[in-house]
This record gives sequence, C-alpha cells and structure tokens, in this order.
Amino acid sequence: MSKSELSQSSSNAAPSLIERRRRAMGPVYATFYDVPLHLVRGKGVWLEGADGRRYLDAYNNVPSVGHCHPRVVAALAAQAGRLNTHTRYLTEPVIELAEKLLGTLPDHLEHAMFTCSGSESNDLALRIAMEASGGRGVVITRFAYHGNSLATVELSPAERGVRLPDHHRAVDAPDTFTNAGQGARTFARSVAEAFADMAAQGTRPAALLIDSAFSSDGIYFPPREAVQGAVDAARAAGAVVIADEVQSGFGRLGDAMWGFEVHGFRPDIVTLGKPMGAGHPVGAVVVTPEIVAPFTARFGYFNTFGGNPVSAAAAIAVLDAIADEGLLDNARDAGGHMLSLLSEVARQHAAIVNIRSRGLYTGVELAGDERRGGADVARRVVNEMCRRGVLISLCGPNANVLKIRPPLPFSRSNAEQLAQTLAATLSSLQH
Amino acid sequence: MSKSELSQSSSNAAPSLIERRRRAMGPVYATFYDVPLHLVRGKGVWLEGADGRRYLDAYNNVPSVGHCHPRVVAALAAQAGRLNTHTRYLTEPVIELAEKLLGTLPDHLEHAMFTCSGSESNDLALRIAMEASGGRGVVITRFAYHGNSLATVELSPAERGVRLPDHHRAVDAPDTFTNAGQGARTFARSVAEAFADMAAQGTRPAALLIDSAFSSDGIYFPPREAVQGAVDAARAAGAVVIADEVQSGFGRLGDAMWGFEVHGFRPDIVTLGKPMGAGHPVGAVVVTPEIVAPFTARFGYFNTFGGNPVSAAAAIAVLDAIADEGLLDNARDAGGHMLSLLSEVARQHAAIVNIRSRGLYTGVELAGDERRGGADVARRVVNEMCRRGVLISLCGPNANVLKIRPPLPFSRSNAEQLAQTLAATLSSLQH
Repeated sequence: MSKSELSQSSSNAAPSLIERRRRAMGPVYATFYDVPLHLVRGKGVWLEGADGRRYLDAYNNVPSVGHCHPRVVAALAAQAGRLNTHTRYLTEPVIELAEKLLGTLPDHLEHAMFTCSGSESNDLALRIAMEASGGRGVVITRFAYHGNSLATVELSPAERGVRLPDHHRAVDAPDTFTNAGQGARTFARSVAEAFADMAAQGTRPAALLIDSAFSSDGIYFPPREAVQGAVDAARAAGAVVIADEVQSGFGRLGDAMWGFEVHGFRPDIVTLGKPMGAGHPVGAVVVTPEIVAPFTARFGYFNTFGGNPVSAAAAIAVLDAIADEGLLDNARDAGGHMLSLLSEVARQHAAIVNIRSRGLYTGVELAGDERRGGADVARRVVNEMCRRGVLISLCGPNANVLKIRPPLPFSRSNAEQLAQTLAATLSSLQH
Repeated sequence: MSKSELSQSSSNAAPSLIERRRRAMGPVYATFYDVPLHLVRGKGVWLEGADGRRYLDAYNNVPSVGHCHPRVVAALAAQAGRLNTHTRYLTEPVIELAEKLLGTLPDHLEHAMFTCSGSESNDLALRIAMEASGGRGVVITRFAYHGNSLATVELSPAERGVRLPDHHRAVDAPDTFTNAGQGARTFARSVAEAFADMAAQGTRPAALLIDSAFSSDGIYFPPREAVQGAVDAARAAGAVVIADEVQSGFGRLGDAMWGFEVHGFRPDIVTLGKPMGAGHPVGAVVVTPEIVAPFTARFGYFNTFGGNPVSAAAAIAVLDAIADEGLLDNARDAGGHMLSLLSEVARQHAAIVNIRSRGLYTGVELAGDERRGGADVARRVVNEMCRRGVLISLCGPNANVLKIRPPLPFSRSNAEQLAQTLAATLSSLQH
C-alpha cells in the first residue's frame, strides 16, 4: 500500500466512530471490510462514504429498488404523517399490500401474514409447519442461513457457533460445480435420506426449509429436477415445503418474481424479508389455507409492528416500483450482461473457477492453491474492490465465493464497472 | 341497541374491508371490539375513524410520544431520504441512539444491541441468558406475554393455545389485590421454589423473565421486596435476570424511565420494543458486558433491519421528545390525576373492585357476580367506551381488568374525558 492509499483508508476508518460503536454496542457487532466503511448517503445503486467517495453498491438486495428511492421515501413519509398503528384495528395499507403481494404469487398461496423481518418470517413459518405436520424436525442445507431467532439460528449453520440440534438434519447443497455437479444430482436423494433418518431416530418431520438461491451455501441454481425431487421427498415424508425467498425474492433472479418459480416447484409456505420494504423493517409469510388452518385453530397471530401502515406503504411502493420501472426485465437484462462480462474476466483470470448467476444474483467462485486457499484470495478481492469503489461480499462454506447481489436498478454500465474493477483487482493481486 | 346506534356501528364496520382482509390475510387475524374499528388518521392522543369520528386513544403505548409526532415523522422522512442501510457498515444514527439510550439506563448496562421488535428482543435476551448461564429453564409469571417467536411464545401463556414446555416454570404474578395481596407476599418464595423444582427435575436455570408492569397478568405494582426477593432467588439459582420493558418502559410509569427502576432492582438484561420508535419497528436488548461476553465469544450478531439508520432516527426522536416535552413528568402528573378521578368513579360504581396504577399505566379490575363474571362486564365496558369514543382494552387471566395505557402526552383533560366516559358507561350498563 502506498502512503496516500493508507492515509485515504485511515480517514475512512473513522476510528473515533468505531470506538464509540464498540463501547455503546459491544464487541459482538462486526463490520464488512478490513477498513470499515462509514456511510453517510445513498441514492440508487450508489453509496457515499464519510470521506466523500462514491461506492457502487453491488451487494445490497435490501434497498431492492435502489437506495432512498423517492417513491418509497414519499410513501413512508406520507403514511407516517397520517397514521401508524397495528392490525387489531382495520387499516387500508396492510390489506392493499396483502392483495398486491398475493397478486404476484401463484394462486394456491392465498393468505399473507406480516412480520418485521426475515427471521420473524422463518420463525413463524416453522410454527405453522409444526402445527400442520405435527412434527418438529427440519431439513436444511449444510451451510444455510435462515435467521437470528433462537429457533431459526439453530437452522443457520452458516453462522459461527451454531450447532444443529439433534432433531434437525442438514444435507449438502445442490452444488452444481464441485465434482462435476455431483451434489446437485444427489440432492433429492440426500433430502429423502435425511427425512428417513430423522424419522428412524424418532423425530416426526416438520419441514424442508430451503433458500431458493442457496445463498449462504455458495449460490446454486441446480437443474429443476434436483429441487423438485427434494420437494417430492419432503412431501412423501409428511413435511411442509418452505421456500425462503428472503434473498432470492422480489425479482432478484430476473426470470420471475420468486426463486421457487425459477426452480418450478410449488411451496406450501413462502417467507419474505430483506428487499420487501427497501430497508424498512417488514416481512411476510405467505401460506396456503390448508397449511395454516391447524395453526389458526390453535393460535391467534398478532405482531405489534407487523403489518403497520407505514411499513406497508413502503412495501407497496416497492412492488409498484418493481412493476412500473420494469425492474424484473432489468434484472434479467443487466444480469445477463454482467454474466457475459464476468465470464470474459474468468477467461483471463484463472482465479475464477466457476460463475453461477440468475438475474442480478451471482456467485463467482475463486480457487487458490487448494480450494480452501480461495478464501484468502476472495477476502483480498473483496477488500481491494471496496478500495476501488465497488462493494461486494463473500459466501459459501469456504468463503471463496464472491457474492454479487446489487439493487435491482443496477444497469449495464454498472455491470461494466463491476467487471472492469474485478479484472483490475485480480490483476493487481497477482503482483 | 337503538336503531341509530346499530346503523352507526354498521357504517364503521366497513364490512367490505373486513371481508377483503379475511380473504387476503386469513382468519388468524383478530380485531379489537365487537364492531371492528377502521382507522384512517392519528394525531397526538387522537385517532380518527373512517366514519369521521374522533377517538381518544387511552390504550396504545406504541405511539408513545403521540400519534404521528411531527418530530418523529420529520426524522424518519429525512433519514429515509438520506441513507438506510445496516450495521455491517458504520453509520452515525445507530451509534447516537445506543449512546442516548444508555444515558437513560443505569451505568452497569453498558451495551445496546438492536432488533426489530419486542419479540426479537426477548428472543435475543434468551439466547444471551442461555449462553451466560449454561442453562435453558426460564421462570415467568403465569399469564405472561413475552413475544410471538417460537422461543418467546412458549413463554407467553397469555396467548391462546400456548403450552409451557416442561423445562420452563410459571409462577403466580405478585397479585396485590386478591386475598389481600397474598400473591405479592409469596412471589419471591414461588420464584425460588420454581427454580429449585426446575433444577431438581434436571433443567439448569437460565433466566427469570419478568414484565416490569406484569401487564398481561393484570397490571401489578407489588412492594419492592416482592420483586427484589424474586430477583435474589433467580441470582441464587444461577439465572440471569431479564427485565421485559416492552410495555413498562420509556417513561410509562411516570416515576422513572424504566419499570425496573420503579421496583428498584438491577437487571442483567433489559428488553425494549413497542414504544421505542413510536410505531416504527425497532427494539433493543441492553446488557452488562459480563452477561453478554459468553454469547459474544460463541456467536456474532447481525440483524438486517435492526439498528438501521431510519428506525434509529425515529427512536432518537422519541427519546428527544420524551426529554424535551417533559413527558415523564406528564405521565406522573396526568397519571396521578387519572388515578384520583378513577378512584372517584370506583366509589360510585361497585363494579370496580381495585385500581392499580403507576404513571400512565393503569389496571381497573371489575367484578361480576363471581370474579369470572367480571370478564363479561369488562368486555361490555370496553365495547361501550369505544362506541362513546374512548379506546381501552382488557388484560388479566380472567379478562376482567381494564387496560389503560395511553400515549404519554395524555393530558389531565384527556384523563377527565376517560373517567367521565367510564362512569357513564358503567351507569349505562346497569340499566
């Protein structure tokens, strides 16, 4: 690092802010990047640092329609000034949101229930699945992430410190790359075996819970029959099929609004979070009437903030922006362009061993001397790209997959900047 | 009911909206009141129905500083237009919020962690307590409510359908009324016995989890020694002491910002939710460094929406409004006035058998022919008061306690309207 680079990094590190944060929020909070990024503004696909630098956001799906989208901000401000209350009174926005949301989903998913986060959505989905199945055993993929609540973090082995409880089972993700895609071919069988083993050990199956992009596992889009086979195995075992669309939903994959549609299967429950309110806390659980009936017979459901009119107004604005601005088409088009550009980078840089992409969700797998070595390269790539003004992150059990998941208005020229920066970064790291 | 009353009720029932809601959100959602209330606007302590009627809000603590407080709305709108992101980057608002919040709490509580709801706060507090104690057994009160997640709903016997798992224990709340306050006198011993029994059955204690106003149990403010004795028993059993301030916090009790201060005990963990963002989804878990250390050693903590700058800006505005507008003083003053007025109503109406009140949190217990009969009277009172333009609700295992918990700017004259309406309602129901 040159002196000027070091000084630039240091000024952006805002040490006093980091220190204030560590004191007030404790050491449990981590930041991205070796030099944490202090952000002060966002607009569209751009984030601005306290140092005045502009960063291309190629990572955050939460500001799905772009940072500080005027339509979302206006809807939020107007509704916040009008009424903010809960679902024990009747209010229009949450009903309008439920109807609009259901309009984007297959007909068999008839009811939407509202939460404050993806974690709450998956947690509620588990409660519904347990009542519907009478079981409590869940099958997930080996490096899944499904939330931070007590019940969902146990199903998030991607998180440090998590031990999968004995009554759940984890199977290898449908890896389409390693061993020529052997993982994808055996996925359905693994799920069937996991449910059989669970039952043999005395736990009644409750659910198959899968992230439709296998995000934390490394981002995979296996052949349809792999996922459909797993779904069939779950149904045969009496388990409920939950599609976790917290990362893959809301048009991210370009070919459809929802990841499970890309895979072509029919979930009993769909869980939503992150992109739903463009950053404003809102999530949902969408269900079939049959699956939710046993839950409704036993329990009521109330979530103080879930379905409040202000969060609902933000979520309605997001759905409207996706539709009116053609963001699904853009995800397909800009995503396709990005894939071809990244494939070109891969041809020139042996560090890239595989690219997996749908719409604006892309995993770029890196290799080092051994596969594990890819993690060090990947970490250096992510940090160097940040230094060069492009934000991405990592995923996968070996932390060697670049995770590229930008806001949906990401353009062809944004994709070009991303690909050029990645190429330049890989070149610089060879020296 | 007279014909005109019936017609007025029907127009407010908005049957098409109810039907749309039932179709889109399913039958699991309940509404308050025999005739559900369709709300369209809020301002201060007032809510406006779709029928153009104005309702005095004497129930909602969530809009803590008043519905649609201009300062909260402005803060929210400004920050939403500037930046909304997560804690993996450095942003100022969440750090400022943590510091301000800690400034209102005792010095031993050093770190604030952020969530999206009271449920998430209690759920996270349980995870922290389990790591700190090495145990998993929790003692709660018999009719507690602590959240809707899988882990917290099990600790919410106030909810229909909930069965307390074998490894937890519930004790009678410190009832200061029934049997001349016998429950309050035996509370500490009950907690000690519950932990002893839990340990004897092979479960290591994790936490004592108490709502500082015993809200769902019926609202009790027992003598300090009752709660301190329970806290001492928990500590002796190796359990972590969690003060659930989701309902009692943020100045509600008038004498202090936090309910545990009113009781005079020293919690290891404090959980926050409902009033924190005046309706915008935000919650927090405040901890001592010692208690959170084992959690931090094992896990990281990240909550996508928890601590986002927009929710943080709303929460900062709430803390500022409480301080600058003297809302703690108002809670004490208007609450004291309300208590004396309600006591006068009680002298004239035998249906009221006990009033329990601190600041702007009041339980008015009603009796019928037998105690259980109070539920029917209470339900009629709540519905009739709504019809007369004042919103309250019910609590307690017998559903015979009027729950009065208005926004903090509730004035002396608002208290007069409430008391007059209650008196008129009780008179009308005698005929």
